[in-house]
Amino acid sequence: MHRKRFYTLTASCPDRVGIIARVSGFIAEHQGWIVESSYHADDEAQRYFMRIEIRADSLPFDLAEFRTRFSAVAKALEMEWTLSDSAMKKRVVVLVSKQEHCLYDLLARWQSKELDIEIPCVISNHDTFKGFVEWHGIPFHHVPITPDNKAEGYDEVRRLFEAARGDTMVLARYMQILAPELCAAYPGHILNIHHSFLPSFVGAKPYHQAYERGVKLIGATCHYVTADLDQGPIIEQDVIRVDHSDSVEDMVRYGKDIEKAVLARGLRYHLEDRVLVHGNKTVVFR
Amino acid sequence: MHRKRFYTLTASCPDRVGIIARVSGFIAEHQGWIVESSYHADDEAQRYFMRIEIRADSLPFDLAEFRTRFSAVAKALEMEWTLSDSAMKKRVVVLVSKQEHCLYDLLARWQSKELDIEIPCVISNHDTFKGFVEWHGIPFHHVPITPDNKAEGYDEVRRLFEAARGDTMVLARYMQILAPELCAAYPGHILNIHHSFLPSFVGAKPYHQAYERGVKLIGATCHYVTADLDQGPIIEQDVIRVDHSDSVEDMVRYGKDIEKAVLARGLRYHLEDRVLVHGNKTVVFR
Amino acid sequence: MHRKRFYTLTASCPDRVGIIARVSGFIAEHQGWIVESSYHADDEAQRYFMRIEIRADSLPFDLAEFRTRFSAVAKALEMEWTLSDSAMKKRVVVLVSKQEHCLYDLLARWQSKELDIEIPCVISNHDTFKGFVEWHGIPFHHVPITPDNKAEGYDEVRRLFEAARGDTMVLARYMQILAPELCAAYPGHILNIHHSFLPSFVGAKPYHQAYERGVKLIGATCHYVTADLDQGPIIEQDVIRVDHSDSVEDMVRYGKDIEKAVLARGLRYHLEDRVLVHGNKTVVFR
Amino acid sequence: MHRKRFYTLTASCPDRVGIIARVSGFIAEHQGWIVESSYHADDEAQRYFMRIEIRADSLPFDLAEFRTRFSAVAKALEMEWTLSDSAMKKRVVVLVSKQEHCLYDLLARWQSKELDIEIPCVISNHDTFKGFVEWHGIPFHHVPITPDNKAEGYDEVRRLFEAARGDTMVLARYMQILAPELCAAYPGHILNIHHSFLPSFVGAKPYHQAYERGVKLIGATCHYVTADLDQGPIIEQDVIRVDHSDSVEDMVRYGKDIEKAVLARGLRYHLEDRVLVHGNKTVVFR
Repeated sequence: MHRKRFYTLTASCPDRVGIIARVSGFIAEHQGWIVESSYHADDEAQRYFMRIEIRADSLPFDLAEFRTRFSAVAKALEMEWTLSDSAMKKRVVVLVSKQEHCLYDLLARWQSKELDIEIPCVISNHDTFKGFVEWHGIPFHHVPITPDNKAEGYDEVRRLFEAARGDTMVLARYMQILAPELCAAYPGHILNIHHSFLPSFVGAKPYHQAYERGVKLIGATCHYVTADLDQGPIIEQDVIRVDHSDSVEDMVRYGKDIEKAVLARGLRYHLEDRVLVHGNKTVVFR
Repeated sequence: MHRKRFYTLTASCPDRVGIIARVSGFIAEHQGWIVESSYHADDEAQRYFMRIEIRADSLPFDLAEFRTRFSAVAKALEMEWTLSDSAMKKRVVVLVSKQEHCLYDLLARWQSKELDIEIPCVISNHDTFKGFVEWHGIPFHHVPITPDNKAEGYDEVRRLFEAARGDTMVLARYMQILAPELCAAYPGHILNIHHSFLPSFVGAKPYHQAYERGVKLIGATCHYVTADLDQGPIIEQDVIRVDHSDSVEDMVRYGKDIEKAVLARGLRYHLEDRVLVHGNKTVVFR
Repeated sequence: MHRKRFYTLTASCPDRVGIIARVSGFIAEHQGWIVESSYHADDEAQRYFMRIEIRADSLPFDLAEFRTRFSAVAKALEMEWTLSDSAMKKRVVVLVSKQEHCLYDLLARWQSKELDIEIPCVISNHDTFKGFVEWHGIPFHHVPITPDNKAEGYDEVRRLFEAARGDTMVLARYMQILAPELCAAYPGHILNIHHSFLPSFVGAKPYHQAYERGVKLIGATCHYVTADLDQGPIIEQDVIRVDHSDSVEDMVRYGKDIEKAVLARGLRYHLEDRVLVHGNKTVVFR
Repeated sequence: MHRKRFYTLTASCPDRVGIIARVSGFIAEHQGWIVESSYHADDEAQRYFMRIEIRADSLPFDLAEFRTRFSAVAKALEMEWTLSDSAMKKRVVVLVSKQEHCLYDLLARWQSKELDIEIPCVISNHDTFKGFVEWHGIPFHHVPITPDNKAEGYDEVRRLFEAARGDTMVLARYMQILAPELCAAYPGHILNIHHSFLPSFVGAKPYHQAYERGVKLIGATCHYVTADLDQGPIIEQDVIRVDHSDSVEDMVRYGKDIEKAVLARGLRYHLEDRVLVHGNKTVVFR
């Protein structure tokens, strides 16, 4: 945790000799102070991944200038890269249905500034949490999704996300399957929490499936949403022990604790630009 | 999890032949349907512990009559025992300071009826959460505790607890040391969440202590409050992994997640009469 | 852990009023001292499960007489039941291939009497561990399994198991699929350790599957072997964290630690008659 | 896991701008291929830590030349540093008493080359494992330690360690307190596994202490040995859940599983030069 303003550079490129030297050389040349840096070589993909935090006040230029200057380095290394500024709060739009646990958990973290984000609005297919959300001073949009209005419903969600200038959409136990067009529009920007340890128990009622199979641990998975249901790149997972004495209802209850913890961790990694997606897998620089 | 009304009998007594037979025989004699039962023999203490749930509608008498009739059995076995009714909601008074995580977590569980309790009031030495608590329809009492007014302050806490007819007092990161008189007044009825894996790092600033010692896991402990600081019977504990890259601030943040989870589990065990105290140790029938 | 000799009764029967009273009444009537007892009602199956340990020297009769007398109780309750004697060591035949970790782990536990069993022989499709096993004074049988000799090979395994008067067969990373006839001959007596968190990654090369999917935890599953590959009743499972920096080889290495731990726990539960199978699920009275 | 030969550079130095650039620049200049690299800035100590693996065949010089050339860089940065060669197997001397679990575990890992080390000898104050160790082709030295011969005993241990050209001494549940002179002679080269989650339960009989306190988790700690008993820098820790039904003997049994796992992980980190000691704390680049 760094209290001072910093820039975060993430990048991936074909692996070769001298990548770190080139990038860190550029930073050092401008007296950039690196506060944290992580590197990973994927042998199979022959691809190199990195994430570097640089103290903003150590550099003689601003973010725009940094971006311009670095693009020459990035081009030479054939990089895909991003550069972000810790002073620019990410704008996170939360989608929720009728379950409270992830919503309370996220708002507690937001309220205490543990998650230093803006929540421009909460969108729900129910109005259950309208009062709770508005009490926090956050706009609440009730967008019902019915078998007949799916297309219009998701158009409205998209319109609200755009109007809110959202960076990230979080499905905080939003019990609807997003329209494929919506998934496709924001790849790597929509996070879901699935209530099973994927790839086990894909689809509906995973706790019922887990109960039927008699597993001894249940889990939750935070992943990026893609058009393939429950198949997107996994960001974070965790499990909790259950036994024969636990009913499906008990599993649902235990599961909530794992779901909110896994979503909070996955979201934090995402917001801090710690997650780099490659194919259907993630590099997570914790 | 049982949806139907049930009575919970907890008991401990000197160990001998025939205890289960005597107790279960009494229940069977009245056609009592046992939905869950747990037994434990402490070899060292030569003491026997049990907890039995009986479906209320299977018995031909009410709780008062049950109590009267069972007291003969209990007397013969020299039992300490309690009998409770799932239809009578426990009354939990929450004490909080300025940290939000345990409070949000408990209110989310209460709001969704995961914790099927009454919260007659929240008491705090700060007014930080007055609005949040009152929005939930729960009375909020601001009772400042200063070096000069400790005695009066804790008298007021006690008065409020009594006025609220509280069963259980929960210190949900209440950053004050209760007066010994208050601890002594409600043994086994005040729960605290301590932000270390006891007995490591007793007292103030445990995350700083953990950071200094360079431990690789940090933890939290839910325990009954006694006059001896951080020494009461332990109900539940858990840990989370940290490493060299984590600052004290990171540890505080990770710790919050463990604290709220451990408090929630410990409180649930307590509320469901799953915790039997013996000396400074607990039997927890999960 | 009880050092004194004891009998273990396990039973399941249709749920009804008075089961514990009847069984514990019978035991108390003969002055039987219960050292540990566990009960479970399966609401869905309307079936009741129990496991009771009784100090042998507290009873006025021997195991055979106990069995005779208890059969009347059991019949009245329509029980399936077993009665075992802690003084009769279980006879565990271990099957192994070329991986060492589970074998070393089991022999260490056997050598120190942590597992108080007989190992009448080890059977392997390779002779890799012949010297190691024989050094421990345990007979070693090399039974090659080839595509051409499967039937004869498994006939030989069965013959050896019978000749050894085996109670339990443990597949300690035995990298062959048992013949269905062999599985069918000993239901609930053959334990396997599968190197994935089932039901994820059934079949061959689960760590490769896990690597491809990009999961953040890998696991192992101890289960009873049935004719359906990797589908038998699960006894125990556990997981360990991995990340993007872990290759398949790293996962294999981490996996070994989980495999041997999960197998050792599952085997112990089995040997102590803590596992009751019902349909494709288990009740495990830990 | 890298199968090809590589060099590992570890270093720490005062934090300043340009450290990574300088070091990675030097490596790139010689076409060195970095396969893995980790960096850490300790804000409090204002010190920088790093560990870099470089493919041996990518460099135009051998280890000695690498060392000579790099020393100029290191000097400029005021570094403490080490450089090792994956082709040079570390020589690990194991000290053991009468408990088998860590010894079996280490030899299984050595036998399968999971730990790619030499074990030039095993030293014990008992002869319990003489046959087992020698069967593996490893020399076994019985060095009794009695209240009267401590000085001579530890002189002999030191002589044997020197004669074996040991790099690392592992106390694999060696139930003796090493002489302070011996500890002082090999700082950062003697690893111990302590059977508690330090700093809880320092000293003798930690499981008895844990039982008395009624903790709900027990643990183990792998640390470097210093003259201060159980106070050395912690490398790795882990815990396992216990409850009221577990006796001290049960805790000892569970503990063994945690001890051997924690020791194996800690030893691996040490052998792969992943542990950098600073004061009484460690940086562990996993």
